[in-house]
Amino acid sequence: MLFHVRMDVRIPVDYDPQRADELKRIERERAQDLQRQGKWRHLWRIAGQYSNFSVFDVSDVQELHDIISTLPLFPFMDIEVAPLCRHPSSIHDDDR
Amino acid sequence: MLFHVRMDVRIPVDYDPQRADELKRIERERAQDLQRQGKWRHLWRIAGQYSNFSVFDVSDVQELHDIISTLPLFPFMDIEVAPLCRHPSSIHDDDR
Amino acid sequence: MLFHVRMDVRIPVDYDPQRADELKRIERERAQDLQRQGKWRHLWRIAGQYSNFSVFDVSDVQELHDIISTLPLFPFMDIEVAPLCRHPSSIHDDDR
Amino acid sequence: MLFHVRMDVRIPVDYDPQRADELKRIERERAQDLQRQGKWRHLWRIAGQYSNFSVFDVSDVQELHDIISTLPLFPFMDIEVAPLCRHPSSIHDDDR
Amino acid sequence: MLFHVRMDVRIPVDYDPQRADELKRIERERAQDLQRQGKWRHLWRIAGQYSNFSVFDVSDVQELHDIISTLPLFPFMDIEVAPLCRHPSSIHDDDR
Amino acid sequence: MLFHVRMDVRIPVDYDPQRADELKRIERERAQDLQRQGKWRHLWRIAGQYSNFSVFDVSDVQELHDIISTLPLFPFMDIEVAPLCRHPSSIHDDDR
Amino acid sequence: MLFHVRMDVRIPVDYDPQRADELKRIERERAQDLQRQGKWRHLWRIAGQYSNFSVFDVSDVQELHDIISTLPLFPFMDIEVAPLCRHPSSIHDDDR
Amino acid sequence: MLFHVRMDVRIPVDYDPQRADELKRIERERAQDLQRQGKWRHLWRIAGQYSNFSVFDVSDVQELHDIISTLPLFPFMDIEVAPLCRHPSSIHDDDR
Amino acid sequence: MLFHVRMDVRIPVDYDPQRADELKRIERERAQDLQRQGKWRHLWRIAGQYSNFSVFDVSDVQELHDIISTLPLFPFMDIEVAPLCRHPSSIHDDDR
Amino acid sequence: MLFHVRMDVRIPVDYDPQRADELKRIERERAQDLQRQGKWRHLWRIAGQYSNFSVFDVSDVQELHDIISTLPLFPFMDIEVAPLCRHPSSIHDDDR
Repeated sequence: MLFHVRMDVRIPVDYDPQRADELKRIERERAQDLQRQGKWRHLWRIAGQYSNFSVFDVSDVQELHDIISTLPLFPFMDIEVAPLCRHPSSIHDDDR
Repeated sequence: MLFHVRMDVRIPVDYDPQRADELKRIERERAQDLQRQGKWRHLWRIAGQYSNFSVFDVSDVQELHDIISTLPLFPFMDIEVAPLCRHPSSIHDDDR
Repeated sequence: MLFHVRMDVRIPVDYDPQRADELKRIERERAQDLQRQGKWRHLWRIAGQYSNFSVFDVSDVQELHDIISTLPLFPFMDIEVAPLCRHPSSIHDDDR
Repeated sequence: MLFHVRMDVRIPVDYDPQRADELKRIERERAQDLQRQGKWRHLWRIAGQYSNFSVFDVSDVQELHDIISTLPLFPFMDIEVAPLCRHPSSIHDDDR
Repeated sequence: MLFHVRMDVRIPVDYDPQRADELKRIERERAQDLQRQGKWRHLWRIAGQYSNFSVFDVSDVQELHDIISTLPLFPFMDIEVAPLCRHPSSIHDDDR
Repeated sequence: MLFHVRMDVRIPVDYDPQRADELKRIERERAQDLQRQGKWRHLWRIAGQYSNFSVFDVSDVQELHDIISTLPLFPFMDIEVAPLCRHPSSIHDDDR
Repeated sequence: MLFHVRMDVRIPVDYDPQRADELKRIERERAQDLQRQGKWRHLWRIAGQYSNFSVFDVSDVQELHDIISTLPLFPFMDIEVAPLCRHPSSIHDDDR
Repeated sequence: MLFHVRMDVRIPVDYDPQRADELKRIERERAQDLQRQGKWRHLWRIAGQYSNFSVFDVSDVQELHDIISTLPLFPFMDIEVAPLCRHPSSIHDDDR
Repeated sequence: MLFHVRMDVRIPVDYDPQRADELKRIERERAQDLQRQGKWRHLWRIAGQYSNFSVFDVSDVQELHDIISTLPLFPFMDIEVAPLCRHPSSIHDDDR
Repeated sequence: MLFHVRMDVRIPVDYDPQRADELKRIERERAQDLQRQGKWRHLWRIAGQYSNFSVFDVSDVQELHDIISTLPLFPFMDIEVAPLCRHPSSIHDDDR
């Protein structure tokens, strides 16, 4: 079950840099772990932005929410979620 | 070189259905041909919308524009393009 | 699996009223059939608007899209979809 | 009398976490109490967001306002209210 | 029970002027009848716009919707509805 | 001379509560005084919001601005002003 | 009594050019007549747009609405109105 | 060479009032000096807002930018600029 | 004197293709002539859009408006204009 | 490979002026260095705004992102990126 997610990170310019770095470090570990598990299928940087487009592959909506809402940078992010399904013109039965 | 594209199709409700069907048929062929060539890497339907999220893999911006602007449904579409690059937390060197 | 959907219907003022009535009649039958099946859990009119808020209960995203995109009024509607999950403060395990 | 409400919670990232936790704890109790009374009919988390869609069942507009404006997180929320009524295609006389 | 409503009328410039005049004539009669009944408490023109701000006084949400959705110009209008209640700084118990 | 005004109050969540209460107290006195003078004709709370819709009855634009811009909560408010005039379908010569 | 008005003219591309020219001719005469009367104090073209910024000097809101709503191009225009008053830093008592 | 400018001033509610007053005092002097030089042709308060509409008469774009960007309140303002030219229906050759 | 312009072309899908082609042909000639004169300094296609970013170099605002408003596709375009000046970090005295 | 970029700089009004000046100084050096290398082809100030329009000429999207995201003022900027290609009406094969 695929979901398209856009995340825009906004860290206040006067936020403590050490805490920010620590949050980013844990976020990276978390993201890489989820990628290795196959939950976070795609993760692209949007050029020129502190933002990403991602595709998540989860068993249900609850799992999607649990993943996103426990990311260390979640309180700093604007997030848009769109459920995806097979496009009738896709050549793949299952485009992950 | 990857580009993220959102396409929203808006066909007027009084548009000739036969011409619309013919345009959609050619569009599908064109989309599948481009997928087979590896140019149109991903093509997902956004659930509940006559819209898709796509990822194109092209040699340069000109090729991207030539592909999109010659799609049969191009005159009916609102299109948003975002250039993508590697995310520093990606576990892939090249996430296509 | 629950999805929240907002539908805004926009029928052009010069659209043939008989065709519109026929589409609305089939739409109503379709909507009632889906409610009886338990797929379309809630259907509320937004006061003062030709719009509704709905909650769909489907087995996956594909089913949601198939239902919405085959509604007779689909070509006349602006649609917003949001996936729902359990709220931690809900007193229900499963609020349908 | 039903009202559809969307609440988006925005707690500043530098807000005291203990005070935030205390506010959330009271908010949860309040929400559960109102659900038990049947005033807060539905409460769903919007996946990927610190937001909910809710349906309130109140005796009049004043009661709706009194409930929402005294929630502990009210000063942190963006709120949208839409009055609901029976949809002519609903199979329920009274869809709560 | 008071509701604040904004109505923006948009008649296509090529719409048959006689039909438009007939619709406006019936709309005016309807509006005046509802004012005399005390349902349509206030009706102001927004200067420079084909728009009005109105205050409706109805027994419930259903009545509000039935009134608005049966106005002859309803298919030509963009409508915004906001439920009103007593303002704590009002000097009136019941500001109609 | 009537003006429709919407005021949305946004007090930062970390603003000193005592100063806020004092400002609100003076604001209320000021609002009630202006109502008694007949300048602030209507004042309604928008349900679920820290917002109001108001109708002012002033001798000219300058008086409107002087009233609004000297309200104690003016620095905390987003304000929209629309000049009103008689609606041709109104049954009142002078709807105040 | 001054009002700032922005007018954006949108004539459909398939509108009969002769009727459009006739409307524009009458609009120009009307606009020039109102300027000579001192009611339409300023009239500037916004560069690159089929739009203008205007300043009207009228005796009350009703007169403003009567002028704007009877312009021949009124049905083709999007209009924004803002009431103006003396700026405390102006060197003029009465900046017309 | 005329430019239409809208300035919206937003001073944080916790900004030091003495510094704000000092900035406003210098801003006023600067604005009056530019008006006397004929550079700042019109300056109107938008009623109900901490905002103005202005018309500048400068020799080129650089001069416009130098004037605006050195205003003491520039860091607190949202600014919109539109270049103006003669309207074909104006009765003035040069409407300043 | 430089102006940055964005043009978005929207030709209705049922517009006569021969007339559209003729308009585009004249538009191209006009655009190339203006480029040769040095008035239209830059003309870029925005990838994936029927849109361009342009930089015009004109003697005054009136010339800019005369050029844009007489383009054959002007009635089909949404246009945004921004006056440009030298950036203090530019290494060019005059970046054309 | 050309990209059009808009940058809007927003430095909080209470940000330490010395740190801001230091960031601006390094930003200027960086920008001038990139201009000398031919990467930052155009850099224009948008009149009246703390904003610029820029054109970057880079070998790929990654280089674009690396340049923008390491600018000292990056955390203070809202950024929009649009990929550019040759316009069919351009008289240049390669408009840089």
